[in-house]
Amino acid sequence: MKVALQGEVASFHHAAAREWFGDDVAIVPADSFGEVFGLLNRREAEAAVVAVENSLYGSIHQVFDLLEAHRYPIVGEIHLAIHQQLAGRGTPGQITRIYSHPVALAQCEAYLDANFPNAERLEFHDTAGAAKYVAEENNPHYAAIASAQATELYGLPIIARDIEDNPANFTRFLVIRPGGQPPESADRTTLVLTTNHTPGALAKILTIIARAGVNLSNLQSRPIPGQPWKYRFYLVLDTAGDRLARIGKQLRPLTQEYVILGQYRRGD
Amino acid sequence: MKVALQGEVASFHHAAAREWFGDDVAIVPADSFGEVFGLLNRREAEAAVVAVENSLYGSIHQVFDLLEAHRYPIVGEIHLAIHQQLAGRGTPGQITRIYSHPVALAQCEAYLDANFPNAERLEFHDTAGAAKYVAEENNPHYAAIASAQATELYGLPIIARDIEDNPANFTRFLVIRPGGQPPESADRTTLVLTTNHTPGALAKILTIIARAGVNLSNLQSRPIPGQPWKYRFYLVLDTAGDRLARIGKQLRPLTQEYVILGQYRRGD
Repeated sequence: MKVALQGEVASFHHAAAREWFGDDVAIVPADSFGEVFGLLNRREAEAAVVAVENSLYGSIHQVFDLLEAHRYPIVGEIHLAIHQQLAGRGTPGQITRIYSHPVALAQCEAYLDANFPNAERLEFHDTAGAAKYVAEENNPHYAAIASAQATELYGLPIIARDIEDNPANFTRFLVIRPGGQPPESADRTTLVLTTNHTPGALAKILTIIARAGVNLSNLQSRPIPGQPWKYRFYLVLDTAGDRLARIGKQLRPLTQEYVILGQYRRGD
Repeated sequence: MKVALQGEVASFHHAAAREWFGDDVAIVPADSFGEVFGLLNRREAEAAVVAVENSLYGSIHQVFDLLEAHRYPIVGEIHLAIHQQLAGRGTPGQITRIYSHPVALAQCEAYLDANFPNAERLEFHDTAGAAKYVAEENNPHYAAIASAQATELYGLPIIARDIEDNPANFTRFLVIRPGGQPPESADRTTLVLTTNHTPGALAKILTIIARAGVNLSNLQSRPIPGQPWKYRFYLVLDTAGDRLARIGKQLRPLTQEYVILGQYRRGD
C-alpha cells in the first residue's frame, strides 16, 4: 500500500500513517496538500493521510476543499499527540540557531522565549527535514525541533524533551482512499452542506441533530461574502450508517448542498 | 501611532495596516502572532493588526486564543483582497527557483504547476522578505511571489501579475487596541462562548440569534476532547451595541463562558 502524505520520512504525517497502516507503510512524500491529491489522481498512491486540524491553527480548510473537489472518501481518522523534541550536537548554552517548521516553532514559543530568548528561529518546510539538516551540518550551535522518531532517524541527540507549550497538543489526521468503503464500525461522519438563504436555517439543522441525540464534534463555517444568512459548513457528526441516513432525510430539505465526505471510525 | 504586526515592510499585514491607519503608519515588525501581543504587553506598540481568516486556511485559532488571553479589544476589521505577483530579474524561461511564504505558494499552486512545473519552490518567512532576497541575489534564475508593493519597494520587475489561483482570494484582519473603545458605528461583534454540557444548547443559541434577526457571519468550534455536547465557539455576529446587549441577556443563561472580544465596524 503506497500512501501519499505531505512531509518526509519521520514527519508527523508519517507517524500518523504508521499508526494506521503499520510501521512498514510505503510513503510517497509530497510538498503540498494539493500534490497529495495529485498523487491519488495519477494513481501513484493508493491512499493518503492528511492533517485536518491542530490545536494551534484549528481546521485546515484547504484540505476540506480538496476533499470536496476530488470526492475521495474519508475512511479513517487518527488522533496524534504531538510531542516536540529539541535536538542538536551542542550543549544548551551553545545554541544560536533553532530550525523547524513554522507551526512547530509556534507550538514551542513560550519554551523558546523562556530558555533560548536570543537564539535565532529559522523556518523549515518540515520538522524531519530540519532534523536532517542539523544532523548533516554537524554544527554545535544549531538545533532542530522535531519528533523523537526524526531525531532518532538522523542520529541527533535530544537536548530537551517534550518542549511543546500545550501538553494537550494534538493533530487530527484523516485517511483518504479512492474507492474506499465505510468500515462496519463507522461512528463518525464528515459532511459539507450549504444552507438555504433564510434566517434560522442553520439553527434548524442543529436542532434536528440535537433532537436525534447525535453529538456534533466539529463545526466550521466558510464565508460566502455578500450573502448574509447563507452558510457553507463542514460538520463532523458522531454517528454514521442508518442513523445518519435518517437524519439526512430531515436535513436535505433545509440545504442546497448536502455532501457526505466520508463515514469512518473515530480516532482514539 | 506604532502598530505591531507579523511581517516586514510591504507585507500583506503592512498593506492592511496602511489601509486602516494611513500610508505613514509606523510599524513594529514581529516574527509571530505571540510576539505581536508581547509588543502590546510591553507597550512597545499602541495597536496591532492581525490576520484572522484567509480563503485558503480558514480561521487562525491561535489569534482568537491570544485575543481571549490578553483581552485587548478588537476595534476594527479590514478585508483585503490578496493579489500575488511573480517577480524577478530573468525571463520566465530562466526561472529555476521560486521563493515565497508557504501560504502564498499554496495560493498560486495551480498557476505554478501549469507554468513552472520544474521550478523548485522554496519557503520564506514572509512574502516581502522573499522579494527582498531575490532582489539582492540578482540572479536571473530566481523569482519571488509577493505583493505589488513589495516588488516595487525592492525594485523587482513583475514577470506575471495576479497569479493567485482563486480570484476571490482575501484575508480578514482585525485591528487590536489596548484600552480602545467600540466605535459608534460598530455593527459587528466577535464573541467566544462555552455552552453548557447539554444536547441542544448550541441549537438554542443559534435559534435565539436567528429570531433576533441577527446574521451570524462566522462560527468556529474548538474541540473540547472527551466532552461531548460541550462546545467552545467563536462567533461573529452582524450586530453590536444595545441590540447585542439584548441578545446577550438571553444567551448568558445557556453558556458557561460569554466573552465579548470586541465590537467594531465590519470591513468592506
